[in-house]
Amino acid sequence: MKAYAEMTRDELKALARELTAQYREMQGKDLKLDMSRGKPSLAQLDLSMGMMDVLSSNDDLTCEDGTDCRNYGCLDGIKEVKELIADMMEVAPTNVIIYGNSSLNVMYDTVARSITNGVMGNTPWGKLDKVKFLCPVPGYDRHFAITEYFGIEMINVPMTPQGPDMDMVEELVSSDPSIKGIWCVPKYSNPQGYSYSDETVRRFARLKPAAQDFRIYWDNAYTIHHLYDNDQDHLIEILAECKRAGNPDLVYKFASTSKICFPGSGIAALAASPNNLEDIRKQLSVQTIGHDKVNQLRNVRFFKDIHGMVEHMRKHADILRPKFEAVERILEEQLGGLGIAQWTKPKGGYFISFESMDGCAKEIVARCKKAGVVMTSAGATYPYGKDPHDSNIRIAPSYPPLNDLELATELLCLCTKLVSVEKLLKEEKLPKRAAAPAEAAPEQNEA
Amino acid sequence: MKAYAEMTRDELKALARELTAQYREMQGKDLKLDMSRGKPSLAQLDLSMGMMDVLSSNDDLTCEDGTDCRNYGCLDGIKEVKELIADMMEVAPTNVIIYGNSSLNVMYDTVARSITNGVMGNTPWGKLDKVKFLCPVPGYDRHFAITEYFGIEMINVPMTPQGPDMDMVEELVSSDPSIKGIWCVPKYSNPQGYSYSDETVRRFARLKPAAQDFRIYWDNAYTIHHLYDNDQDHLIEILAECKRAGNPDLVYKFASTSKICFPGSGIAALAASPNNLEDIRKQLSVQTIGHDKVNQLRNVRFFKDIHGMVEHMRKHADILRPKFEAVERILEEQLGGLGIAQWTKPKGGYFISFESMDGCAKEIVARCKKAGVVMTSAGATYPYGKDPHDSNIRIAPSYPPLNDLELATELLCLCTKLVSVEKLLKEEKLPKRAAAPAEAAPEQNEA
Repeated sequence: MKAYAEMTRDELKALARELTAQYREMQGKDLKLDMSRGKPSLAQLDLSMGMMDVLSSNDDLTCEDGTDCRNYGCLDGIKEVKELIADMMEVAPTNVIIYGNSSLNVMYDTVARSITNGVMGNTPWGKLDKVKFLCPVPGYDRHFAITEYFGIEMINVPMTPQGPDMDMVEELVSSDPSIKGIWCVPKYSNPQGYSYSDETVRRFARLKPAAQDFRIYWDNAYTIHHLYDNDQDHLIEILAECKRAGNPDLVYKFASTSKICFPGSGIAALAASPNNLEDIRKQLSVQTIGHDKVNQLRNVRFFKDIHGMVEHMRKHADILRPKFEAVERILEEQLGGLGIAQWTKPKGGYFISFESMDGCAKEIVARCKKAGVVMTSAGATYPYGKDPHDSNIRIAPSYPPLNDLELATELLCLCTKLVSVEKLLKEEKLPKRAAAPAEAAPEQNEA
Repeated sequence: MKAYAEMTRDELKALARELTAQYREMQGKDLKLDMSRGKPSLAQLDLSMGMMDVLSSNDDLTCEDGTDCRNYGCLDGIKEVKELIADMMEVAPTNVIIYGNSSLNVMYDTVARSITNGVMGNTPWGKLDKVKFLCPVPGYDRHFAITEYFGIEMINVPMTPQGPDMDMVEELVSSDPSIKGIWCVPKYSNPQGYSYSDETVRRFARLKPAAQDFRIYWDNAYTIHHLYDNDQDHLIEILAECKRAGNPDLVYKFASTSKICFPGSGIAALAASPNNLEDIRKQLSVQTIGHDKVNQLRNVRFFKDIHGMVEHMRKHADILRPKFEAVERILEEQLGGLGIAQWTKPKGGYFISFESMDGCAKEIVARCKKAGVVMTSAGATYPYGKDPHDSNIRIAPSYPPLNDLELATELLCLCTKLVSVEKLLKEEKLPKRAAAPAEAAPEQNEA
């Protein structure tokens, strides 16, 4: 396969005609596929239907310690679910607060509380002129939406395969007291599937923030979401590492069972130091009488323990793995060696990160859409929806059936080729003109 | 029965000795009873065990419109549950947002959002020097805890059997732009069981607040929680009344199924005008991907429709009614005509409000506790826990079995008599001394 950059203008023109014809053919197929969000597929959902059978009217809905799950009480979760989730989060049950159905909501709440009431006695952020968060990019759009909603200024920090650029993180965090947090998806990151290296985690635990109320927002969304049995990423446990480093209060750790059982009907949790938990419980006791204990019991009765949960995740992996491998195979077959795209090959999580040539991502996603395949909006993986290179596309292979996924990936490859050729043709024109007119300039990212 | 105030000093002294002996006897019974919170009893919880059977692995967890309740999506609730809850709240489904398991959490969230992001474009309360709420008293301690947590100044407004003192509400709301809300439990109020009169509701809908972002927090927690079949309170629907009065955005209405099925495993909701809902959905879409739709479906499949829900509430009433009647009977038998206490006789809800002589409530509750009966803390029904008369005690008859409840009520009566006699004896002493020493003064409410 010849790299596009090495092609002559005539070769590119011929290729553009060929690709345009192929694209029209794809449009004729009337596809309606969705690769936009990290949703489990129907086959994955079916894995958890047993959840609907573990509690019946013949069952006793009482906990081991006598708590009646049907009534009020038990603010931060029943003992059994704390043990299960603590094992999942690799922390002690005493470090865990069990919440409702959404870890996103817990993160929202954590930021909101910091704004209205401050962090462990520090000035509420709402009383400060400026509050900033570091955002490893590309990253998770819903994280960025929370900080944007609250008017928090977001600063991009580049991601590497080992995690965020820690030189930059250390410098910023130690010098600017208005930086109050950093969004992290440390394992099988969204969207790259990268896992933070041991060095990265150790450097996080040893941060010396200028702000006393700086916290690491450690969203361990994919903690047991491996694709392979023996080839798994492993992370140093951050809460313990912070404690060892003398920074016990530095981190909030978030997780949920949303992508283990049913999204929306799982259990979310936060793990933190005793000081942080004391601060948080003050709020929690005002906010609610308690979360859904019947559902907590349902989760425990279904998974039984962490081993049951891990075995359950193997079944998810058996469904997800062929999808990730199909996407990677087609990307390699169609785009390998062309010099117009790169992509990650994660060993877990829900996403593959795709990098087109600069200035092409929006147009590729738009072309996919016009041929019936919805991708995550280009730019969504950056704060304010602004990808400065307009190059990142998040691929979510989980939801479509395998055949549909293959079709959608082929369309993505085709659109990538087409948009890349068009870009190269435009760029070749540029040197011939004194001033490039706007319409011939490389595609710019919109506000 | 002779009123205590008409007794001679010797009669009071003799009575004190007799009551003290009775109290010691009660202490010997080693009671461990709880009349503190509005918790459903085990018999009531058993009514909803069928909830555990309506969804099994053989059932289709798909909505009428094709929404798969097992997966992500459907931010503000499935269509079926909106219809059910809208019927319960007496509004149109389009005016309803379905939340998680706790209406308290929805109210917390509503105040928090107003602080961080403001109400419909108005200045966020967090940027204002002073924010105040009106609090009809006695009222619900968890309401007051929310406004206290956020540093909102609370102003007491006296309750009457027709609702809050509307002259005072109108004057304050129309003159002070820092007043941003009022906490209301309009039907079978907590703790009195009063329901707002038609005139009260109409005056609420016609308020002319000085603050554009003033809202009525209408917590209709006991909307279908009647004790009697034919003798039920009825409320003018506030959302419709506000619309008719030209004030469509004036009210947030809250409700949940917590005391209909299982507390903590029910469905909470908010009803408001389209303008308010638009404002709220902006937040909601940042806060969560969606609430627990499987549980929404479970609620709908169990109750089927509002008629099913109302029939279900008759079964609750059959369990609750004898308890309320027993408490009222014992109070009348033991305290009627003594001139030392008054109490309400609600036709629904979860509470009876009890008024002792001034300065006696804390001591009565303390004496009950020493004899093994836990009541709601005296003062809890007032903002900051400060009952200026130290006279209000909330009776929650729902949880204990009938026999226990009768014992607990008898103890309450005994403690009331004892503390009242002691108070009268102390007061009689007062005129004899130039300056009453601190220990002889009437019990004062602590900070």
